[in-house]
Order: sequence, then structure tokens, then C-alpha cells
Amino acid sequence: MSAKRKRPASASSVGGGTRPVVTLLTDFGERDGFVGIVKGVLFGICPEAHVVDLTHEVVPQDVTGGALVLASAVGYFPRRTIHLAVVDPGVGTSRRPILIDTEDFVLVGPDNGLLSLASDRSAVRRVVHLDRAQYFLASPTRTFHARDVFAPVAAHCARGTDPGEMGSPMDGFQRLSLPRPRRVDDGLEGQVIHVDRFGNLICNIGPADLGDFRASGLSISICGVQISEISPHYSSVREGKPLAVWNSWGQLEVAVRNGSAARQLRARSGDRVQVKLRR
Amino acid sequence: MSAKRKRPASASSVGGGTRPVVTLLTDFGERDGFVGIVKGVLFGICPEAHVVDLTHEVVPQDVTGGALVLASAVGYFPRRTIHLAVVDPGVGTSRRPILIDTEDFVLVGPDNGLLSLASDRSAVRRVVHLDRAQYFLASPTRTFHARDVFAPVAAHCARGTDPGEMGSPMDGFQRLSLPRPRRVDDGLEGQVIHVDRFGNLICNIGPADLGDFRASGLSISICGVQISEISPHYSSVREGKPLAVWNSWGQLEVAVRNGSAARQLRARSGDRVQVKLRR
Amino acid sequence: MSAKRKRPASASSVGGGTRPVVTLLTDFGERDGFVGIVKGVLFGICPEAHVVDLTHEVVPQDVTGGALVLASAVGYFPRRTIHLAVVDPGVGTSRRPILIDTEDFVLVGPDNGLLSLASDRSAVRRVVHLDRAQYFLASPTRTFHARDVFAPVAAHCARGTDPGEMGSPMDGFQRLSLPRPRRVDDGLEGQVIHVDRFGNLICNIGPADLGDFRASGLSISICGVQISEISPHYSSVREGKPLAVWNSWGQLEVAVRNGSAARQLRARSGDRVQVKLRR
Repeated sequence: MSAKRKRPASASSVGGGTRPVVTLLTDFGERDGFVGIVKGVLFGICPEAHVVDLTHEVVPQDVTGGALVLASAVGYFPRRTIHLAVVDPGVGTSRRPILIDTEDFVLVGPDNGLLSLASDRSAVRRVVHLDRAQYFLASPTRTFHARDVFAPVAAHCARGTDPGEMGSPMDGFQRLSLPRPRRVDDGLEGQVIHVDRFGNLICNIGPADLGDFRASGLSISICGVQISEISPHYSSVREGKPLAVWNSWGQLEVAVRNGSAARQLRARSGDRVQVKLRR
Repeated sequence: MSAKRKRPASASSVGGGTRPVVTLLTDFGERDGFVGIVKGVLFGICPEAHVVDLTHEVVPQDVTGGALVLASAVGYFPRRTIHLAVVDPGVGTSRRPILIDTEDFVLVGPDNGLLSLASDRSAVRRVVHLDRAQYFLASPTRTFHARDVFAPVAAHCARGTDPGEMGSPMDGFQRLSLPRPRRVDDGLEGQVIHVDRFGNLICNIGPADLGDFRASGLSISICGVQISEISPHYSSVREGKPLAVWNSWGQLEVAVRNGSAARQLRARSGDRVQVKLRR
Repeated sequence: MSAKRKRPASASSVGGGTRPVVTLLTDFGERDGFVGIVKGVLFGICPEAHVVDLTHEVVPQDVTGGALVLASAVGYFPRRTIHLAVVDPGVGTSRRPILIDTEDFVLVGPDNGLLSLASDRSAVRRVVHLDRAQYFLASPTRTFHARDVFAPVAAHCARGTDPGEMGSPMDGFQRLSLPRPRRVDDGLEGQVIHVDRFGNLICNIGPADLGDFRASGLSISICGVQISEISPHYSSVREGKPLAVWNSWGQLEVAVRNGSAARQLRARSGDRVQVKLRR
């Protein structure tokens, strides 16, 4: 997107623009005011921030689910956007609070793998262990680091404080090992990695995994249903029928036209999907 | 609302103010980051936008439900607000992406009727087929036009690009035919068109439909329950009892005080409501 | 938090800064566009406002539940933030619309107790009965005061209108009587007052209620489960085991590591919790 590149942002500045964007991704839900409190802290430190919710409906404690959604989104925000992500079952333990500074964006959150898939979407410059309490709220608790640690750090970052000021350099960070599709005799065997709100089944198979296969010469098998091609869009079959597309994440997705593939196929995350070369 | 009129906005400018408002209405839900991505694209092109969520909980593919909510809201936003609405089962097919420029606001979305009820709330000036790819993201997909087509167009609009620049003029657009109430011997027969989060039953009957009837001389029959008058507010009856009001949309609404009419009456969209002149 | 105090705000001004923050807490849900409409009215009057959602998922008509969430949040926002809260089963009756001006923030909403727990978090300066129609939308309804009365008042407040201009002074306002924990022979008997989205059980017991008891010498009994200490964080026990913490509200909370205490203990608001001094 050319417009995204128009913003004059020096490669080493973070959020120095007039309207730094801070995104939030959590498993906090919308019921209890936790997300609002995080925003209160952000605006208290950086009144000019644009705060954007990615989602707060990550399944509680589902680090992998949060990591996938975060990775799908980071490419669509202005340069130097700060992404604050908290799915943090280990809050208050020795797991470290970290900041990952990349060429295109900044990630702030717990060092439990949540940030790792997103970090692969840009070139990592440095990793910082957030260990300087002057950037936290006073008396941080051991149960709500989003409020007490991560929001203040993200807000200081949005105001222009150099990430390196906010902690000690680290050499690495926790990574997730996502299941990879497996080559088998006549094709690939993968799995469903995310079920979206429409009941669409997003699989761990991308176009590159197909290698020499041609998308037009494939058949897909999932939960006892056969799909004989990859369609250009969701209306390529009759209402209520299953289909496959390359979806907006760039991944193989099984859907049902104007319906829910998850419900109709009784499918869920982890279910096997087989892609065969049709002979 | 007088304050809404204070803003100096020339009739032909779109979003030229310091803080253009862009609203979003979709059936994307809050789980998957789709809405956040749309906002990332908006801010990338128009960093000064105020982005307001109308709702993302439209029932998947329910174009009529989305159209009703959109129409209920457009009258309460500052002049020249841009309303981006996407309930789009036909994404990627030949259904056209359009912009409807009205005297008071701008609508952007698919040409499937979703925008039509809102467009009735102002004077339509022109309709534009969004067919100029330079205003889209590079390489738009056929599954996520909210991100690839509608958000960039709305953002350019918010920055002040003339809508006429973004596509070819069109003569008309798809309209929804909402069910109209029917005159019968002793009154009107209508139906429930929306069930809100409280379980209130919003009907397709407005004060103008009553003609010479006086609201005080009516009785209402729905799902086997009789209601003998239109109340001034929700507390006009005892707790747990059904009542009828002219609601905030200006429509006839059946509610239960401190309860859910939908649950208590086992009612839903499409159910018949009869209004009789009491003798 | 020192950064919150940096903002230069004269003690008597309300929202006079460049980016006044207005928070929203309602029981409107996210489905129907009601919240979006409220924001449209806010931006129409005060285009520079930062609007932050605390929650819109308060259980319909649950004034106490809304009051608890509001009280948990007000301490984390910039000084002079305006908190607009509407859980309002008595809308349109003689219950008064009010504004409570405190040393640190402003509360706007119905006089039904909803604002009272938050008002205890600061020093109340004055209470105003919002009875001046020139600050409302034209022709306010009796069913949607959030849109017609409270949003315009909050927005005028955010623009800098003095609260005293918007109504008549009042001497007091409705207060909630929350259940207090009871001293018993060998400890305290309290109850669950809120179940959060994780299924954590927040109790009406704070550290001050313990008096001379030492947290390390306690045992907690709830729904047939015994917990023998207060843990520093959620990972202090094995997965699936219950624990107790002082939570982010500063209250006693019973949780299950990586699980839902509400589901596992079949607990809900109102359930009894006993804290005993271990002998």
C-alpha cells in the first residue's frame, strides 16, 4: 500500500509522529473494564495516541491464537505503530516483559511466544527486557501487567522515548512452534489453526507449501468432506455448500457459502486437512 | 441538534475538517482482528480520522439487519461523516463497490442494499462505482474488500479527495424492500424487524402509519400477548410485564420491564404484530 | 503514576485540555449501534474528545455490576476525565439525570446509585441536577437519555462548559449499599460480588478487612473448596487448581490457574466466601 509509506518517519524514531498508533490485543474480553483501564493509562502518558483494538476476544490463555491474529494484522498499520499484546497466563512469574523493536513496528508484551509470529513479519533490530521500574506504574501488581507495566511502556514509546532506554538488551526471545504441513505421497497434510467468527477454517497451508502443485489440480479433504478446487471467492458455489479459498491472511481456508463451515463440518482447531494432487 | 450544525462545513467538501469521522459497521465480529486491520489501513492513509464503531455484531450475511442499524445511526453524526459499512456475502463477485454521496453524509460499501435505508435519511447527490484501483490497496483480494477497497476509499475521502475522483458515476443502486405494515379492517398488521440486545422487539410500524388512530386508543397483539396502550417509558408497568413504546428509532417497540420480551414472548424477527383500534 | 499528574489542569477546569477523555460504560451491548450513536453525538459537539469504552457488556439493568466496574477504572484515567455511565432501568421516570464533579474526575449519568461507588474514589465538590434542556438534544425521548441528555452534557463538559451551568445544585445523590463482610468468631464471612470474563470470583473483602490477621495465616472456603493461602500470582499452583490472590482491584479473588473458577466451583455473584484464621 503506497499510502502507508508516505509518512515521513525516520527509521530510528518510534512513534514520534503527531498521532502515534498503539494497538491492543488481549484475552481480557469486553465485560470488566480491564481494556478501558489500559487505555486510561495510555492516554495519561500519551494523550495524542490513536488506540486501536485488534481484539480482546482471544480465548483465555490461548497464546498461539493471539499470536496468529497479531501476525495477521501488523502489516496493515502505519510504520512505527506500537502493538501491545497481552495473553499472559504467567503474569507475575519469572517470564520476562519484553519489547521487540523491528524495522516496521514495535511489539510490547510478555516473553511467552505471543509476539514471535508477528516479529517474523519484519526485521528484528533489538529485543529489550523491560526491567526499569521508572517506566511502570508505581507499585505494579503481579496480576495485571497490561495496566502496570506494558501500557506505560507502550505509551512512553509512543511519546518518543527510545526503546533502549526502557530496559536491558536481550539476545533472544521465546518462539512458538506452529505445526507445519507435512509432505505425504500424493500431497500435503496440514491442520486447522484458527476458526474465525464466520466459522471459516483457516489452515496452516499457504501457496508456497504447494510447491509444484497447481491450485487448479487439487482436491481437499477435511472432516469427511471433499472439495475439488480452490475458488476465487465465497460465492463460487451454491448457498450452503463448502468451498476453499486463499483467504485474506494468504492461507488456505475452508468455508461454507453463507454458512458456518465449523458448524456444518463439526470442525475445530487442530482438525486434519489433506490436500491431494488430483490424478 | 443545534450543535451538530455549528461545524463550518462547505456543502461540497467531504471530511475536510480537522477531525473527519469515519464510522464502521460490519458483520466481522470482534474475535479475529479483521476490524483492527481495517482501522490500520484507515489510519495509514488518514492519520487524523476519528474512527467510531457502529457495530461489528451484525448477524453474518444479514444485509437487512445491518441496513436497519446503519439507518438508525446516520442522523446523529457530524455533517460529512463517512459511514463505511460491509456486510458483503457477494464479495469478489460482480456486485459493485459503491459510494453514495448525500447532502449530509457519505456511504461506502457494497451495492447490495446495505446502504439503501441510510441513504433515505438524506438527499442523494451522486452515486459512484468505485472502479479506480489507484485508490485501493495494491493487489486487492477477492475475499476482504473492507480492507483492500472500502477502507482505502473511505480514508481518501476523509482526507478530502473528491468522491467523483474515485470512480465512475452510476445512475442507481440496489435497494432493500422492507416489509411494510398492512392496513386491515380494524387497524394495522406489521412485523418485528429487529430484536435488540435487551430483547426489545422493534416493529415496522411508525407513528405515521397510524394515520387517524390515536395512540391512546390502541391495543397491540403479539405472540399471544395483549398490550392495551403505548407507554411513555419502560417503567410504566410492573417489573416483568410487557409494554409498548415509541422507541429511540421512532418505531413501535414491544419490551418487558427489566426483562427480555424476546425471551418471555418467544418472539423473533419476522413475527407478526397487530395493532387494533380499541372500540 | 507520576505521568498522570504531569498534565497541567487547573483544579476548576473540566476537560479544557487539548484532548479531553470521555469514557463510556453502559449495558447497551455491541449489537445495535446504540453506543455508536452516543459517540456520534459526542463528536458532533466536541470533535476533539478521546472516547474510551470501559464496557458495554454490563448485564442489562445491573446497576451494581456497572457501579463496581466504573469504580475500578476511574483511578487510571487522566485528571478531569469525564465518565459517562448509563445503566438506567428508570429512564424517562422521575429519577434525575445528574453530574457529580469531583476533585479528580466528572461523572455523568442517572441518579440511581450507578455513579456512587466511583464517587467514593475522589472528593466530591458538587452535584448537579441536569435540568437545562438547552444542553440536551432537541426533543429528548423518554427511552434513550444516553443519546439525548447524557452524551450532549458530557460533550459540553468536555468542551469546557462549567458543570454548574448545566443544572441546579443538589445536596446528595443515590448511593448503593454494597454488602459488607461480617466478622465472625474465627474470621470473616463475605461474598462474591463480581465474576469476571476469566471466571475469576471477586469478593467483597479487601486487605483492610483482615485487620490483624496475617494473609499467610489464612484459609479460604468457597463452594466447598478450601484454599490455604493467598498466592502472589495466578501461576502459584498447578494448572487447574484453585487459588486466591489480591487482585488488580485490590480485592480478594478466587481463581483457577488457566481455568475458570466460576465454572469449576459452580460459583456466582452472591455466593458466600469464608476466611478463617488457621490455628
